[in-house]
Amino acid sequence: MTKLLTRTIEEIGPLDAAAMAAARARQDVLTKPQGSLGRLEGLSIQLAGIQGKAIPLIKNKAVVTMAADHGVTAEGTSAYPQEVTAQMVLNFLSGGAGINVIARQVGARVIFVDIGVVSDIDGGDRLLSRKVAKGTRSMAIGPAMTIEEATAAIETGIEIIAAEAEKGLDVVGTGDMGIGNTTASSAICSVMTGRPAAEVTGHGTGVDDGQLKHKISVIEKALAVNSPTPDRPLEILAKVGGLEIGGLVGVMLGAAARRLPVVIDGFISGAAALIAAALAPHLCDYLIAAHVSVEVGHRVLLDHLGLKPLLDLDLRLGEGTGAALGIFISETSTRILAEMATFGEARVSEKSAEAD
Amino acid sequence: MTKLLTRTIEEIGPLDAAAMAAARARQDVLTKPQGSLGRLEGLSIQLAGIQGKAIPLIKNKAVVTMAADHGVTAEGTSAYPQEVTAQMVLNFLSGGAGINVIARQVGARVIFVDIGVVSDIDGGDRLLSRKVAKGTRSMAIGPAMTIEEATAAIETGIEIIAAEAEKGLDVVGTGDMGIGNTTASSAICSVMTGRPAAEVTGHGTGVDDGQLKHKISVIEKALAVNSPTPDRPLEILAKVGGLEIGGLVGVMLGAAARRLPVVIDGFISGAAALIAAALAPHLCDYLIAAHVSVEVGHRVLLDHLGLKPLLDLDLRLGEGTGAALGIFISETSTRILAEMATFGEARVSEKSAEAD
Repeated sequence: MTKLLTRTIEEIGPLDAAAMAAARARQDVLTKPQGSLGRLEGLSIQLAGIQGKAIPLIKNKAVVTMAADHGVTAEGTSAYPQEVTAQMVLNFLSGGAGINVIARQVGARVIFVDIGVVSDIDGGDRLLSRKVAKGTRSMAIGPAMTIEEATAAIETGIEIIAAEAEKGLDVVGTGDMGIGNTTASSAICSVMTGRPAAEVTGHGTGVDDGQLKHKISVIEKALAVNSPTPDRPLEILAKVGGLEIGGLVGVMLGAAARRLPVVIDGFISGAAALIAAALAPHLCDYLIAAHVSVEVGHRVLLDHLGLKPLLDLDLRLGEGTGAALGIFISETSTRILAEMATFGEARVSEKSAEAD
Repeated sequence: MTKLLTRTIEEIGPLDAAAMAAARARQDVLTKPQGSLGRLEGLSIQLAGIQGKAIPLIKNKAVVTMAADHGVTAEGTSAYPQEVTAQMVLNFLSGGAGINVIARQVGARVIFVDIGVVSDIDGGDRLLSRKVAKGTRSMAIGPAMTIEEATAAIETGIEIIAAEAEKGLDVVGTGDMGIGNTTASSAICSVMTGRPAAEVTGHGTGVDDGQLKHKISVIEKALAVNSPTPDRPLEILAKVGGLEIGGLVGVMLGAAARRLPVVIDGFISGAAALIAAALAPHLCDYLIAAHVSVEVGHRVLLDHLGLKPLLDLDLRLGEGTGAALGIFISETSTRILAEMATFGEARVSEKSAEAD
């Protein structure tokens, strides 16, 4: 591992227990029955522990959406042609995609990154061109990437977070675009959770049942050809992952190292989280699972990571759309802690010792 | 029934099928795999049908939070003393309650209504003083209200919606405050769903297991004393309901009559929805269930109404807090429909006929 990656992993420490205790104590004297805001209360306490503040703040919000292509699409695993990756990046840049709409509503900026799209994209200022390679190679034949490429992808994510933190950043969401990336994510999920490919592979953007069978067989072949093992996360990423997945691993590690909460999106972000959590033991404490997607492997990997999703709206778009909604809910939880009056301030009677 | 109530019920028609078909058609050509925004897609189509617009708009947002007291608290059914109702209304007016915080974040105005608090509240301009009575009588002894009081409460809700619609209103959320109102709501839920009180009665703001047993026995007594039957919804409201519950029935009916979507909050709003839906057959089409609360009867009544909650965050605060979050999600769904580019506009390739 390179120096930047090693150092970043080392910087990820445990949550701040004192800040969490202070947040818990404040939740318990706000003008509501204790616990009545349910998961919003627990979320605010996690955010306190991450940011190291008794009253955490979510004001500067960003989603990092990484785009890349996948050599495995040559095997016919996707419902959409490969050129859609680049076309959708252009759609992002003109503001017409789902992530643009939801990020605007939530007040989050979106950083669009070309970390490995096959074609050249003239994106101007609105696109971060950080192409590590022109797509991956087909994992059905050999490794999708070299270890150096996988490492460069992770470092790109770390560097982007460093640059964004300079501009002001309180929370980051993860997003992805890449035709073929559910295939890579299912492969990662299978290796890391030990479940057969058939149990963690879904319809992606919309393959039919026959195509799904083929997709599973391609993943099985890729796992046989590359023999990735769960104790070597960086190798898994290189062998059966993707450039945008690597980039998101870097976003997660870089954010956690700076005590920034990471709201993860759907299945592809979840696959990145599997790799990142295997690299850094404390990482999961910094993750907030925005939602559980329709993609069958997503719930499997969230369970594996011990993460409970906030939303269950049958989303499966990716791009960071679910993450943007999760950022909104995270902000709600911090506003509750910051803005609600206490029983003392509002002169509201507390709960009776016994029912009156 | 009075003329206003009868006319309002008659005005509630079916959803606009043409608007719904147009919304569905547009969802299918937006730049995403069909169906990939899951419940947000269906929600946008429901909103199109309610508003009668192919692209529905949610801009002017309001939550109506009704406060009232309950005579049944004299039986010792609540964890908090009765004066908390009035104290919390003052907390609402000074902006320190949960609903204030979440409504601010969502950009919704909140209309706080004293529809039946026992004590006089000097709320100034920020409080609508529409006291129908100084609380209800104990339903454990006899009817909580007269039919005239119950009707007046409903009409108050209808009138408030009429006034708010004049100011501009695209969606309304429902909220409640009233120590004792989970007891009334469980009684309504038991009658309307035919389930025993013990199956639809929960801990409310926080009674312990012994107090819960007592609360159930009080509800059983109230049902025995008053003998409400499911075919007489107005009588149920009068006998075992509450003034704020009646007010919310009016909000729902009044909004639906004006083709406004109603985002309902938790268990108390759900009890009001049971009454409103029994009065007006098309009403349920206008309802959006924001969340399912921890209160045990809530899921039972949502199933009875055929409503699927958007969120499951273990909330049980009431006030309209869940509804405000549901309004946000509703707005997301309409923004998607309004703001996303189509495949044609963005020049993105559509799904292959077969996997390539």
